[in-house]
Amino acid sequence: MSDYTPRPEDRFTFGLWTVGWQARDQFGDASRPPLDPVETVHRLAELGAYGVTFHDDDLLAVESDRERAIAAFRKALSETGMKVPMATTNLFTHPVFKDGAFTSNDRDVRRHALRKVMRNLDLAAELGATTYVFWGGREGAESGAAKDIRAALSRYKEGVDLLTSYVIEKGYDLRFAIEPKPNEPRGDILLPTIGHALAFINELEHPERVGLNPEVGHEEMAGLNFAHGIAQALWHGKLFHIDLNGQHGPRFDQDLVFGHGDVKNAFFLVDLLENGGYDGPRHFDYKPVRTDDPEDVWVSAASNMRMYLILKEKSRAFRADPEVAEALAASRVAELSEPTLTPGETLADLADDEFDVEAAAARGFHFSRLNQLAMDHLLGVRGGDRA
Amino acid sequence: MSDYTPRPEDRFTFGLWTVGWQARDQFGDASRPPLDPVETVHRLAELGAYGVTFHDDDLLAVESDRERAIAAFRKALSETGMKVPMATTNLFTHPVFKDGAFTSNDRDVRRHALRKVMRNLDLAAELGATTYVFWGGREGAESGAAKDIRAALSRYKEGVDLLTSYVIEKGYDLRFAIEPKPNEPRGDILLPTIGHALAFINELEHPERVGLNPEVGHEEMAGLNFAHGIAQALWHGKLFHIDLNGQHGPRFDQDLVFGHGDVKNAFFLVDLLENGGYDGPRHFDYKPVRTDDPEDVWVSAASNMRMYLILKEKSRAFRADPEVAEALAASRVAELSEPTLTPGETLADLADDEFDVEAAAARGFHFSRLNQLAMDHLLGVRGGDRA
Amino acid sequence: MSDYTPRPEDRFTFGLWTVGWQARDQFGDASRPPLDPVETVHRLAELGAYGVTFHDDDLLAVESDRERAIAAFRKALSETGMKVPMATTNLFTHPVFKDGAFTSNDRDVRRHALRKVMRNLDLAAELGATTYVFWGGREGAESGAAKDIRAALSRYKEGVDLLTSYVIEKGYDLRFAIEPKPNEPRGDILLPTIGHALAFINELEHPERVGLNPEVGHEEMAGLNFAHGIAQALWHGKLFHIDLNGQHGPRFDQDLVFGHGDVKNAFFLVDLLENGGYDGPRHFDYKPVRTDDPEDVWVSAASNMRMYLILKEKSRAFRADPEVAEALAASRVAELSEPTLTPGETLADLADDEFDVEAAAARGFHFSRLNQLAMDHLLGVRGGDRA
Amino acid sequence: MSDYTPRPEDRFTFGLWTVGWQARDQFGDASRPPLDPVETVHRLAELGAYGVTFHDDDLLAVESDRERAIAAFRKALSETGMKVPMATTNLFTHPVFKDGAFTSNDRDVRRHALRKVMRNLDLAAELGATTYVFWGGREGAESGAAKDIRAALSRYKEGVDLLTSYVIEKGYDLRFAIEPKPNEPRGDILLPTIGHALAFINELEHPERVGLNPEVGHEEMAGLNFAHGIAQALWHGKLFHIDLNGQHGPRFDQDLVFGHGDVKNAFFLVDLLENGGYDGPRHFDYKPVRTDDPEDVWVSAASNMRMYLILKEKSRAFRADPEVAEALAASRVAELSEPTLTPGETLADLADDEFDVEAAAARGFHFSRLNQLAMDHLLGVRGGDRA
Repeated sequence: MSDYTPRPEDRFTFGLWTVGWQARDQFGDASRPPLDPVETVHRLAELGAYGVTFHDDDLLAVESDRERAIAAFRKALSETGMKVPMATTNLFTHPVFKDGAFTSNDRDVRRHALRKVMRNLDLAAELGATTYVFWGGREGAESGAAKDIRAALSRYKEGVDLLTSYVIEKGYDLRFAIEPKPNEPRGDILLPTIGHALAFINELEHPERVGLNPEVGHEEMAGLNFAHGIAQALWHGKLFHIDLNGQHGPRFDQDLVFGHGDVKNAFFLVDLLENGGYDGPRHFDYKPVRTDDPEDVWVSAASNMRMYLILKEKSRAFRADPEVAEALAASRVAELSEPTLTPGETLADLADDEFDVEAAAARGFHFSRLNQLAMDHLLGVRGGDRA
Repeated sequence: MSDYTPRPEDRFTFGLWTVGWQARDQFGDASRPPLDPVETVHRLAELGAYGVTFHDDDLLAVESDRERAIAAFRKALSETGMKVPMATTNLFTHPVFKDGAFTSNDRDVRRHALRKVMRNLDLAAELGATTYVFWGGREGAESGAAKDIRAALSRYKEGVDLLTSYVIEKGYDLRFAIEPKPNEPRGDILLPTIGHALAFINELEHPERVGLNPEVGHEEMAGLNFAHGIAQALWHGKLFHIDLNGQHGPRFDQDLVFGHGDVKNAFFLVDLLENGGYDGPRHFDYKPVRTDDPEDVWVSAASNMRMYLILKEKSRAFRADPEVAEALAASRVAELSEPTLTPGETLADLADDEFDVEAAAARGFHFSRLNQLAMDHLLGVRGGDRA
Repeated sequence: MSDYTPRPEDRFTFGLWTVGWQARDQFGDASRPPLDPVETVHRLAELGAYGVTFHDDDLLAVESDRERAIAAFRKALSETGMKVPMATTNLFTHPVFKDGAFTSNDRDVRRHALRKVMRNLDLAAELGATTYVFWGGREGAESGAAKDIRAALSRYKEGVDLLTSYVIEKGYDLRFAIEPKPNEPRGDILLPTIGHALAFINELEHPERVGLNPEVGHEEMAGLNFAHGIAQALWHGKLFHIDLNGQHGPRFDQDLVFGHGDVKNAFFLVDLLENGGYDGPRHFDYKPVRTDDPEDVWVSAASNMRMYLILKEKSRAFRADPEVAEALAASRVAELSEPTLTPGETLADLADDEFDVEAAAARGFHFSRLNQLAMDHLLGVRGGDRA
Repeated sequence: MSDYTPRPEDRFTFGLWTVGWQARDQFGDASRPPLDPVETVHRLAELGAYGVTFHDDDLLAVESDRERAIAAFRKALSETGMKVPMATTNLFTHPVFKDGAFTSNDRDVRRHALRKVMRNLDLAAELGATTYVFWGGREGAESGAAKDIRAALSRYKEGVDLLTSYVIEKGYDLRFAIEPKPNEPRGDILLPTIGHALAFINELEHPERVGLNPEVGHEEMAGLNFAHGIAQALWHGKLFHIDLNGQHGPRFDQDLVFGHGDVKNAFFLVDLLENGGYDGPRHFDYKPVRTDDPEDVWVSAASNMRMYLILKEKSRAFRADPEVAEALAASRVAELSEPTLTPGETLADLADDEFDVEAAAARGFHFSRLNQLAMDHLLGVRGGDRA
């Protein structure tokens, strides 16, 4: 009998804004009262989480005095042993950011955004965060004439460069992580996918200090395979943090419980995270559905962790299954890790090869068998999984 | 009265495979006979095109002897003055590439793909092409277990690096251009968007020799704003070539006539290309609809060029309109080009700023007026445009 | 020189909630103050609108006493001559409707919803509305186990049947119009498209009293061709009302200005509305972008009407153009209105036909020419349109 | 240990064109040789299938003489006991149908289409089919000017009405089933979703003889919830047949193995089919991936049936689980089957109700728990499922 009880060593973290979401949506008023961050810390700790993350403004959900709010939050952390591995800035709720923060056409707003980040960087560092996320939800446009995209990218770079310098000067042990999203709330958002953000980072002054915080649903809103995106981020050494949740393809941002969207891709994602060298937190950025009452919220919070642990166990069983190993070999999956040229071989040598094209074309890759084996593991119907 | 007659100096080019598409689709047989590349060259020249582009196998559409096919093609080029600014390799039609070319799990196939490219690189260089495109339509997967994505990216890099070395060794004046696509024919394709390909290029041995060939419809299949993507490609200095066509959002790859999909975005795209420093060919990669007969094909070919010229004129009028200039100023579009920090200013100075957040939040950006002015120009209903 | 000045006879109407939207979105607080319905009536009248529409709760935007709010609204209507051709109920903002209104699992909520509608039906009738809209934005689910869809459809039917009886009993001159939407705010909404709602209506007790209020963006969120959907609704005699706006394909509900999304489809839509026998209001259900200030809002309101009038003029010119007539004939568009069997002909006669399949297959339909002529008209570059 | 071995009583059927697909796609040549229908019948029988289905032209895959092909097919059926519960007509491959079959602008083509269907109806009846499918893949358009949609719907109706009369006259025990699809191969297809087809049927002369054959992937291409669509089809009494497969949302038509796309929705679909009164065949309309060799094809065929049986068992366990029953009750799922009005109750009675809106709004629906229980069953991690 497996045990899917979360433990701090699983490094599960939640944003204060996730369980704390009051379910005020585009078409409706709040269905839940504000949630005290102090309660959040205690409840998540009881559920087995490792830590919490926050936007500057999240701390003020019920206590509007900043110093008192921080003190209470610290106390809760200390009482529970919960960590704050990541923090971020709210640069999207206030209407001052309606045309963006780092890339608003209004220069004064850009300056305000930088100040707001700086202030929270100090707090983030103080609380021990090592990752600081930038989600540029308002950096975008609805009309082609309204925004000079190249200028916007230059300002985006200026903002991130300045803040990187700030962190370096202060000696903070903080790395930045950009969170891409294709649209919503803006019609089109800058750095819409993992790829665009990876490319952008290469133009920064300190690219080594900046990586990604990809979110499952955001890539799936563009119809992209999230596990493929994460694999590319890992290949570039840029998976600094990750936002786990669920989504049903191109539509509004659903922020479902992790694994409650495309669970097959979630399985391959966990398989990749567990075996691909990622050692950061498993951070859930989901929204409890609006039909949830305040107690239901903790049920859905627990579901995220349970889903991860279930998929992790399945990944282990999949990789340990001798029939899977055989099927992977038959599909020549490992052969792709062999360089195409033999060491010492030249293109001239290559040109002289003999090759029977038709015979090669006729060879099957047997992916169907492999795919069904993965489904069998996912669904728990492989021999060892069943009585 | 404007003149929308294409001229060679407009640098319009077409792939042989576009007008030559026989309209064999996923669910149907060809509706048109093969088209002789020689005829294509002559007909496109008559229509005012600047040049043609080709996959190695396109030349063999009606003449199966490679040498004779090349000779006839050259002759047509010479008679018409048509150029060949770009060429590419067909690494997707033959079933040998069913699991990919540079990233097939089958190493022998990868080697075959390299040989096939090398052979055509020689011809491309000979014919004067300066851009060589890689569209990796078969580099992908349908199942998460079937492909090691990080290994695949390493093999992709190996392939491009080897071929770059080959071009350098041979002294060819050729740059590579990667063409991203999210899916179709594979379930998920590697380097699915402009962003992913830009990021990949940074890991290559000779990144300066490799850029992009983005295609309108491919980005729109992921719901992305194509003009934004091109702006980012230009910002990185990587817009080496471009594929113009039309698409109606996330669905199968439609390859409509340029501007016949999202014409508003096409307007902003042309505005960007004409004013953004791109000086390469305007290459149409479209498919004449299956209902077109062989003569209709040339009507649709002409439509692509006409659409571009119409939009180009509108862009010029839009930028020359004093009311537009005033609206752009009111929307503070140029203000985004001003650095957020004044020269000499430090973050410490910034922190001391006074700022009235609520007053800033209340300021409107007046984008609606600007947007409608753009629509008026697009639809030809601004004063100067109408009698 | 054309005149795009809206006049009451154009029958343009706006929801109070459109210009009155305070721009509180999923990720942000309001960027505009509440708008008094009285001001809305006056401003829209000045812009040339024919009328306004409302949800029960819209009237209480600034005046919370219902009777006083209604009296003030009436006075404004009377002063301006503005009409109220349509009204509807807000069954989605209050959290009591979080699991639906007519289809909430909670029977008491369903009863409350019916009461809320009845009360507003009385007011709607009093104000002269002849159409009453049902948008079931909360009728749906996020999880397959949570909602018995067949039971939900039965309750939906029960609700509409009861309310139809109520209207009939009261002798109100009101017809109902269902507004489909695929998702948002619920994960999946019942009656997601024009088709599903048309089918549903056939099961009602008084199908003749119930039709559709389709919205451009809602169908485009499912990637569907809106003009095709409207054509089918007209074919069934069920286009009772229409919501005009703009959208960029499958993503969150954008509610852009009409024609600012897919303007080509908007052109064919206006062409259909003007020539297809629809004589109801042209109702705009859009949201002024969040960057708009209170004055910008009226600019965007005016844009909707301007776009419609521009497209209407283009449709007229398109249909009057002899070259278009010729192209339509060449494409055999009218031939589709000829019955496939000749009067008196039987299937047996048909079976004996001779038919040259290959010759028919070779015939072109010349749609490319027709399509470009439509684009030329849309873009205002046909002869007669230009000096 | 469960047994997922398919048996004829499971009523699994496959189209000849599914396993027989040679993997010729939009961008590539065939990767597999033609498959003899005789072999298909024998192989599927060995795998435990109940029957096969066919397009008229499928029978001619290797034997071009129609009579000999039919005789051989009959013999195989007789030897194996395999049934032919459904047949259909290929009205899309030949270029004569490039602008549609029942709705081609070319009247002669429409007549040809009717003849082609009639001939195959005779064969279908002879072979014992009771369902005859219409998939109108070419009934559509790419341009708004090219097709009069209302005329097209009238011709569609004319075609279906004529063929219904034919079947009635001949006394065939055949019902028609329309298969909706939103796009591909046409830009936009008529009757794009389950809803549109249901509505259309109501306008036919013999609506009782016409129902639906919905396909999983086709609805998912429009981002619609397939299980919801099937529930509505059942509610209308119109689920005559079903096409099971897999798809990853809005993109090209993937035709994956059933359950290999959105497996969570597939679970709720099977749950609905098994408990919702559908007793027709479980028909798989999938395409073995192009990387499959001729033997892999049978592995993927078997996967479809295995997936169905796995999900069927899980549905049974889910419904039998007392904790699920308790969670369903807590979520008030069955309460939705209670009429909203008590028998004898009137709207006037309803109006007098007292109702505490805020108290009702505060009640949670506990869907998160129910949803996780469903996931636990799907993933096989509920108590009884694990050792």
